[in-house]
Amino acid sequence: MLRVHSSMVTADLPRLSAQMSFLLAADGLKKVLRGNRIGDGSRRENSAEHSWHVVLMAMVLVEYGPHPLDIGRVLQLLTVHDLVEVYAGDTMIYDEESRLGQAEREALAAKELFGHLPDDQHAQFESLWSEFELASSPEARFSRAVDALAPTWLHWGEHSKCQPENLTAGQILEKKTQWLAPYPVLLEMMKKIVSAAVDRGLIGA
Amino acid sequence: MLRVHSSMVTADLPRLSAQMSFLLAADGLKKVLRGNRIGDGSRRENSAEHSWHVVLMAMVLVEYGPHPLDIGRVLQLLTVHDLVEVYAGDTMIYDEESRLGQAEREALAAKELFGHLPDDQHAQFESLWSEFELASSPEARFSRAVDALAPTWLHWGEHSKCQPENLTAGQILEKKTQWLAPYPVLLEMMKKIVSAAVDRGLIGA
Repeated sequence: MLRVHSSMVTADLPRLSAQMSFLLAADGLKKVLRGNRIGDGSRRENSAEHSWHVVLMAMVLVEYGPHPLDIGRVLQLLTVHDLVEVYAGDTMIYDEESRLGQAEREALAAKELFGHLPDDQHAQFESLWSEFELASSPEARFSRAVDALAPTWLHWGEHSKCQPENLTAGQILEKKTQWLAPYPVLLEMMKKIVSAAVDRGLIGA
Repeated sequence: MLRVHSSMVTADLPRLSAQMSFLLAADGLKKVLRGNRIGDGSRRENSAEHSWHVVLMAMVLVEYGPHPLDIGRVLQLLTVHDLVEVYAGDTMIYDEESRLGQAEREALAAKELFGHLPDDQHAQFESLWSEFELASSPEARFSRAVDALAPTWLHWGEHSKCQPENLTAGQILEKKTQWLAPYPVLLEMMKKIVSAAVDRGLIGA
């Protein structure tokens, strides 16, 4: 676990120093590996590059979301949505055991990570993270849908070269449908991806 | 070079199919390695995770930018700013030879990459990329400043464990100052980082 302290380079700029400490801690997200692989199957995806990809995906797929939608806020939510993994690690949604205590772990991690920031920004970033977690706005709900779609598609899309896994279409759809249901086109796509993965023998029916 | 074609899974959704083809091509950015290392020096940074980090950095450092500033647009510019590297590769700013023909290579790559998208989004994304390249708005100029600061700080910041390199403070500042000059706090920070790297013997004076 990376711990950072205020920068000496910026010691005479205490506010900037706190901000850079946060940004350096956030750099640790590049070392958090997720369960899914990148598109060509060559390696697991890390949470930083995943965060970038869902931001881009939201920009491209925004027309399937609700109207009106503050796309700038969606991009902010998706940029920060996985940050607490720097201290709490990634939790596989299909691993019920590792999900025990996840909320408490992540709430503590949020306090610690956003605590690097000056107080006003601590509040701002923790609020963005909570909004995503609680899906408490149209922007947060659309962000969760994009975040639910991305790894399923990357890992099991027809381009994928991943190995079969001990998982069923029902298990995947049970986790994902709640987030995609409000957006018919995206839900249809999710179902098609999962159904094609069943046809290819990658997952059970 | 990754080439993708329209998805069969989404064959009855031609617009979505084109959008997913673009997003899959964009996934290749996770395999483009940059010249600088991540914060703990353990490996080179890829352009996808870099893009995420500069988006986050812009959110945190926005107060040092111009007012007013459309932060949503800054995030969009930084999300797409390196996308053409999927086809054109990363070009080290200190390698004058590899910079020859860079503009032409990247313009061709932009046509090809954004050409995956439906026409309206092709125009939208190519326009975002051009705005960043040409630094033709306050948002694009602030984005370029953040993009100039990020790798210098990650690679040569006081946290860094990088090896000395055959590069001088003058060479770095010559490339970077043009982008940071409008933002005194960020320029001061850049100068402090470079000067501390000289003191530590990582680069020449």
